[in-house]
Amino acid sequence: MRVGFIGLGAMGKGMASNLLKAGHEVCVWNRSKEPVEAMVAQGATAAQEPREAFEADVLVSMLADDAVTRAVVLDSGALEAARPGLIHLSMATLSVAFVTEMMERHVQAGVQFISAPVFGRTDVAEAGKLNIVVAGPQAAVDTVQPLLDAMGQTSWPLGEDPLRATIVKISGNFMLASAIETMGEAAALSKSYGVEPADLLNILTNTLFAAPAYKNYGAMIAEQRFEPAAFKLTLGLKDVGLALSAGQAKHVPLPFGSVLRDNLLEAVAQGEGHLDWSALGGRALKRSGQA
Amino acid sequence: MRVGFIGLGAMGKGMASNLLKAGHEVCVWNRSKEPVEAMVAQGATAAQEPREAFEADVLVSMLADDAVTRAVVLDSGALEAARPGLIHLSMATLSVAFVTEMMERHVQAGVQFISAPVFGRTDVAEAGKLNIVVAGPQAAVDTVQPLLDAMGQTSWPLGEDPLRATIVKISGNFMLASAIETMGEAAALSKSYGVEPADLLNILTNTLFAAPAYKNYGAMIAEQRFEPAAFKLTLGLKDVGLALSAGQAKHVPLPFGSVLRDNLLEAVAQGEGHLDWSALGGRALKRSGQA
Amino acid sequence: MRVGFIGLGAMGKGMASNLLKAGHEVCVWNRSKEPVEAMVAQGATAAQEPREAFEADVLVSMLADDAVTRAVVLDSGALEAARPGLIHLSMATLSVAFVTEMMERHVQAGVQFISAPVFGRTDVAEAGKLNIVVAGPQAAVDTVQPLLDAMGQTSWPLGEDPLRATIVKISGNFMLASAIETMGEAAALSKSYGVEPADLLNILTNTLFAAPAYKNYGAMIAEQRFEPAAFKLTLGLKDVGLALSAGQAKHVPLPFGSVLRDNLLEAVAQGEGHLDWSALGGRALKRSGQA
Amino acid sequence: MRVGFIGLGAMGKGMASNLLKAGHEVCVWNRSKEPVEAMVAQGATAAQEPREAFEADVLVSMLADDAVTRAVVLDSGALEAARPGLIHLSMATLSVAFVTEMMERHVQAGVQFISAPVFGRTDVAEAGKLNIVVAGPQAAVDTVQPLLDAMGQTSWPLGEDPLRATIVKISGNFMLASAIETMGEAAALSKSYGVEPADLLNILTNTLFAAPAYKNYGAMIAEQRFEPAAFKLTLGLKDVGLALSAGQAKHVPLPFGSVLRDNLLEAVAQGEGHLDWSALGGRALKRSGQA
Repeated sequence: MRVGFIGLGAMGKGMASNLLKAGHEVCVWNRSKEPVEAMVAQGATAAQEPREAFEADVLVSMLADDAVTRAVVLDSGALEAARPGLIHLSMATLSVAFVTEMMERHVQAGVQFISAPVFGRTDVAEAGKLNIVVAGPQAAVDTVQPLLDAMGQTSWPLGEDPLRATIVKISGNFMLASAIETMGEAAALSKSYGVEPADLLNILTNTLFAAPAYKNYGAMIAEQRFEPAAFKLTLGLKDVGLALSAGQAKHVPLPFGSVLRDNLLEAVAQGEGHLDWSALGGRALKRSGQA
Repeated sequence: MRVGFIGLGAMGKGMASNLLKAGHEVCVWNRSKEPVEAMVAQGATAAQEPREAFEADVLVSMLADDAVTRAVVLDSGALEAARPGLIHLSMATLSVAFVTEMMERHVQAGVQFISAPVFGRTDVAEAGKLNIVVAGPQAAVDTVQPLLDAMGQTSWPLGEDPLRATIVKISGNFMLASAIETMGEAAALSKSYGVEPADLLNILTNTLFAAPAYKNYGAMIAEQRFEPAAFKLTLGLKDVGLALSAGQAKHVPLPFGSVLRDNLLEAVAQGEGHLDWSALGGRALKRSGQA
Repeated sequence: MRVGFIGLGAMGKGMASNLLKAGHEVCVWNRSKEPVEAMVAQGATAAQEPREAFEADVLVSMLADDAVTRAVVLDSGALEAARPGLIHLSMATLSVAFVTEMMERHVQAGVQFISAPVFGRTDVAEAGKLNIVVAGPQAAVDTVQPLLDAMGQTSWPLGEDPLRATIVKISGNFMLASAIETMGEAAALSKSYGVEPADLLNILTNTLFAAPAYKNYGAMIAEQRFEPAAFKLTLGLKDVGLALSAGQAKHVPLPFGSVLRDNLLEAVAQGEGHLDWSALGGRALKRSGQA
Repeated sequence: MRVGFIGLGAMGKGMASNLLKAGHEVCVWNRSKEPVEAMVAQGATAAQEPREAFEADVLVSMLADDAVTRAVVLDSGALEAARPGLIHLSMATLSVAFVTEMMERHVQAGVQFISAPVFGRTDVAEAGKLNIVVAGPQAAVDTVQPLLDAMGQTSWPLGEDPLRATIVKISGNFMLASAIETMGEAAALSKSYGVEPADLLNILTNTLFAAPAYKNYGAMIAEQRFEPAAFKLTLGLKDVGLALSAGQAKHVPLPFGSVLRDNLLEAVAQGEGHLDWSALGGRALKRSGQA
């Protein structure tokens, strides 16, 4: 398949690479040029402007956030210039408000829009083992299925409304943030009675909470090791904000979400915005004077 | 071993039964008589008063809470009348304040005290598959190890200070409540965009959150099925209270704990105290007008 | 002075009327025509388009929110077409982000910008007794002082940076919301022990809390009378949102603000968005099953 | 009237002194002896043991908290030894649970019990200007009215059930804590935009919030001056706890109360327990990295 791929950040590089390995023709675009060259070395062609990447069967976008996606896809004129019949496979974590706007703009441009955000950090992306939640027109989803199979270990179909995949991704990241905060508070509580966080979390992440989310973040909290950042705390603040604003639009209060936002803001105010977002799990120790 | 066992509630019955199966001599006491008779039918002897159960090598207690344990162990005079050299294996979920008081009283009575609360609901207790966190004098723990092995699949040693096991148990239950609330909020958010809670939780509990805590409670939340209660919401309120008061004593704020307490209180005020505590995971749907 | 006045809503009408009474020439514009006619009957002239109101010495704007102000002032082209040397006296409650954008646009247009939001409900506006917080270039503020004196009982100068007045207004509305929630929780607590909210609030609003904010809203909470709405709950939700987003931009967590937002969202979800925002003070009674 | 007075702390001294000035015979008891001597110098007689103070027409108690009141009134045997027909005028801030227990014990002892806690700090107590909320048997209240008049500027009758006065006092202190937190958050927000807390609070405490609670605590927050403590932060934590536990008993969630408790705990953990409780209003500045 001829694939345009825009956004070669930490996640995008691994994903595009797996498309090349699966034998697809991939034309890549990225703001900075180094990752483009790395992909060309693997067999990709380089687009000079975003719109060149839209001359394909499928355009995959994996940009940082709403603002960058707006700039590259909408404001650049690339979408309006797209090949009729193009399918846009949008894999970034975007707000429901922006996805809604994107859906309208794609209808106007005659381009089919699929929302397919992913769960997994960079190592998982490289290994082609992402979990992908996907929603969009069924025929379009069928068309891109080989691409999803190349990038992920499982794709989870969620129907025809792209917002459905978006909200599942946002909900999942909210649940991760919540697990981090929970472990942080439990660690502060147990430490105040002399039980090291590592001892507490060793027991719980091998029994009731024996799941990747708890094991991975639990290890970081146990060691209070928040660098290097695989996913920055400021990005976590952005994603919790996506949950809160999605909830606000539908009048759904999220009291845990509010606590998470307050604690993430406090972390940024205290100079921790550049750390991995698991640093949220260190706030309770600090607040209780134990770190 | 000669074992006294007081407290044949939903959990205690399964645990005492497993001690009998493992070949121990068990003398049981319980406030109501039916469960006593059931145990006698399995080979136990019946104590007429609590203090008879204290004439053993090891006394196991599995009573409802601080107040009942105080009445049966302390106020009844049973502890003072205990056989010198007795080991008390306390397996209920008690407050740190009360365990502290118990420790002092046991020193006075010349009885060794082990805190060994358990993770697992009634079916797990029956199957002898509990996870047991245990802390107390090492020699005493060694002595009771065969009992722990008969009741649990794993015992997690936490050192000599009984409070260490108590705080791990309290922290674990706090983490469970937090997982329930998290799923409830995520379910309300996704449902407001047309994704049924079952669809959301199916994806997340098979990937990042593939752990017993999330799978078990996630299924109940997905179906909004909160009866019959395996663990009542009012008991959950009690246990979240144990975390908050343990934290208060050491000046550890637990903002998630505070939200949990408020939401559990609201559930009780709305007539849901008799439901399973997973009903906490239904509040967000109700609050947002979706149930 | 020649004054252009845009925005004749519940507040604007009283304010424009007081300018006329003070002898100023007032040219009014409003989206709907009835309030324009009422002002013309009092001696104003009517602008057919917003830009006509910008042909004055001072333009006063009192529009509903960011979006309406953007449409009428910026997107209409009125600002660009403004008379050189015009002073814009912006009296609505706007976000810090939008005021920042407005400041830049006014510099480009060669128009001086003053932020001067007001405290007081419609009866206070009619009586010319508003409290006005004002910040902008000193000479410009001196020029508009007679207008401020005609509309308010006191104007509170806050220096040259317009954002300073904006943030004081946003902070004040946050404090009002907080007072409402506080009285609501206290009322629910006292009622659960048989003390009617009216009895509790009578004592406290005549002693420690003998202030307009508590007396006015306390009376509404005591009677649980939330209609007709002088200030709709949905507007309160908007204003608490202004505080939270202003805080987020500077990394200032506002935990009370988060609770307020959650409870206001719950009220909207429960069908109370059209009530006066003092209905926030009825949520605690409902949540505790007492109303 | 013959008055026994126990508890000559910062508040009790001023109150007892005003009883003496009004011409009553006052027999005082206090754990430490200095304040006793000071009262004797003013014309009081000294009790060697609490029970001597119970040989009067009216016993006034103004002890620190539940625990001290329990020790001095109940566990000392003084209540059982009280003169038949004695009226106990209990003026401390006590928990609803303990007042309930006190009521039962007084019935058994044949002593009438009035709950009459006070609003006002030490200077107000000295000046005889307290606001006193009072509930108890009507005839008994009539009897003690001259004492209330000597100690307070206004007494607010709340009926015959002593708990009604207790809950109004607890609710009032909750409202004070809430006002402090609110001003602290507003101050942090405005400061992040360059407006000093003193400037913000000057405006608001002279307009919408022109009430003693806001003026007094606002001045302390504006100056970030939290020493010397007129009312220690640890006592504030105790009183917010009284509101939360009173609410819990009746299933009334108090989300602002929960935030207050968490923030007060954080303050204690950060070494601020000895400061005036207005230091709660400094937490938001610290949390946002501005102090």
